[in-house]
Amino acid sequence: MRIGFIGLGRMGRAMALHLLEEGVDVVVFNRRVEKVFELDKEARTLTSQSLGELTKTSNIRELINNLDSPRIVILMVPQGSPVDEMITGLLEAGITDGDIIIDAGNSFYKDSIARYENLKQKKINFLDVGTSGGIEGARKGACLMIGGDLQVFRKVEPFFKTIAGKIGSYEYFGPSGAGHFVKMVHNGVEYGMLQSLGEGFEILSKSTYDLDFEKIARSWSRGSVVRGWLVELLEKAFQDDPKLEGIEGIIGGGITGMWTHQTAKELGVSTPAIEVALNAREKSKIEPTFTGKIIAALRYQFGQHEVVNKTSVKGEALSVKK
Amino acid sequence: MRIGFIGLGRMGRAMALHLLEEGVDVVVFNRRVEKVFELDKEARTLTSQSLGELTKTSNIRELINNLDSPRIVILMVPQGSPVDEMITGLLEAGITDGDIIIDAGNSFYKDSIARYENLKQKKINFLDVGTSGGIEGARKGACLMIGGDLQVFRKVEPFFKTIAGKIGSYEYFGPSGAGHFVKMVHNGVEYGMLQSLGEGFEILSKSTYDLDFEKIARSWSRGSVVRGWLVELLEKAFQDDPKLEGIEGIIGGGITGMWTHQTAKELGVSTPAIEVALNAREKSKIEPTFTGKIIAALRYQFGQHEVVNKTSVKGEALSVKK
Repeated sequence: MRIGFIGLGRMGRAMALHLLEEGVDVVVFNRRVEKVFELDKEARTLTSQSLGELTKTSNIRELINNLDSPRIVILMVPQGSPVDEMITGLLEAGITDGDIIIDAGNSFYKDSIARYENLKQKKINFLDVGTSGGIEGARKGACLMIGGDLQVFRKVEPFFKTIAGKIGSYEYFGPSGAGHFVKMVHNGVEYGMLQSLGEGFEILSKSTYDLDFEKIARSWSRGSVVRGWLVELLEKAFQDDPKLEGIEGIIGGGITGMWTHQTAKELGVSTPAIEVALNAREKSKIEPTFTGKIIAALRYQFGQHEVVNKTSVKGEALSVKK
Repeated sequence: MRIGFIGLGRMGRAMALHLLEEGVDVVVFNRRVEKVFELDKEARTLTSQSLGELTKTSNIRELINNLDSPRIVILMVPQGSPVDEMITGLLEAGITDGDIIIDAGNSFYKDSIARYENLKQKKINFLDVGTSGGIEGARKGACLMIGGDLQVFRKVEPFFKTIAGKIGSYEYFGPSGAGHFVKMVHNGVEYGMLQSLGEGFEILSKSTYDLDFEKIARSWSRGSVVRGWLVELLEKAFQDDPKLEGIEGIIGGGITGMWTHQTAKELGVSTPAIEVALNAREKSKIEPTFTGKIIAALRYQFGQHEVVNKTSVKGEALSVKK
């Protein structure tokens, strides 16, 4: 199996490594060429028995020329104009009838529908794929939520199966936009869950008991009703920094939560928990809280999302991690 | 090992069966004697190699007389006056110096502190234990959050270890009240998580896509950021009833969420997500929503909490399950 891969950020690099490890030949391009060399270096450390071949390219035309028809190209770039720019680049480079572009990034589902319609006129196929599971998921097995034409999905299915691996999953949810729609809602749920955990631990932090947060997260991870990956990651966060003293309570992100909230309004659905979680992110920039520390720490754990570090507990002065 | 056990409701019966299965001798009492016979019947179906002995008693004095000093008695009765009544019963029946009462139910932590102080004057030990994991957890391995005197905890530890089993956990969190405090906050987090999942699936239910909810819950259970027990239970709920047509969107419970919210206020912590989740429960009684269906279905999955059923999808007319 052979695939094109554009976008080697944190998620893209992890996913490309996973594909190579599973024996898929991967032809990569990234606007900033350093990322290609970083991937190449990391790929050399892989020890899989049936390693895929990595082909480095320095422009999209070169990437296209290294793929056989029908070409399959995964985009893993930031949502918005970067996706459009890469699609334009692919069109200019000669992507053609029957080729398949997969947007596996975090795009708004309406943008995905518009891109699908536009590409359909050119007889180019487009799938929208929401990817969840953070960097660990991209590296070992992610959760893929897929929308687009069913017969196109069927053609690409072996790749999705590979990316999902043993711990992840892939599901086809319906016509164009369905994948990014389900992923958007997943993120809205995630906002509410993060906020709930944040609020809980802020109460714990203000109690008169001298509570061990790491112990609580470990306890909740094993047998409780709220057990799950987020609580497990919280245990790890507290192992690194028992009171999160090194992290500011400022929360980044916010765009997918905003989409979810707007979409809910359009559909006439009341989503107070998602709304307060969204507002709390904005507020955290002015008035940092322990809730914010928890959310920032968790977002760093799963996605290495930017986190404003104070002088770290290990004594290094850290600036904003990107 | 031998222990007294009072309260054979859904959770109590499951926990008593688990103890018996693990070879613990259990002396039981329940106000409604049918529950004792139900337990006896179920206990006869256990196939463990080293089954504990079940001793049925018809009053608290009989229970006390079947235990050696220091007596250990677990209470698994509804919070509030039932706990006080059972403690009074134990005192009248002759529980004495050095004996240990464990409240493993869902009591308010301030009530637990008051009970501890009162019993301390009589030289009787008291531990407050928050139990999470639903009926399945009580049956196979629960998450136990424990408060009280450390040396008393140490004496009872083998029993906690047995109840926690392989999938659960037990942790000592500090002096009297700490166990029920941590459990209260756990429940607050649970309220927020349930509400977030509810809102997410209500958006999904109103979308123009014809989405398969069971597929979505299964997808999110495998590799996503929000994966965890609640999402797994949601998959089961949709397996039973794909659109939850048989369940009214009315949510029961509310008391532990109210405690969490009040405690947060006392401690000066802002908990908007927990607050909206609490309010949504009240509102659901007047204006049922799909969010409410999700939460009611999940509460039934983990705790067999009451759920208002419409004519069930299987065609049976069901009234309120208790």
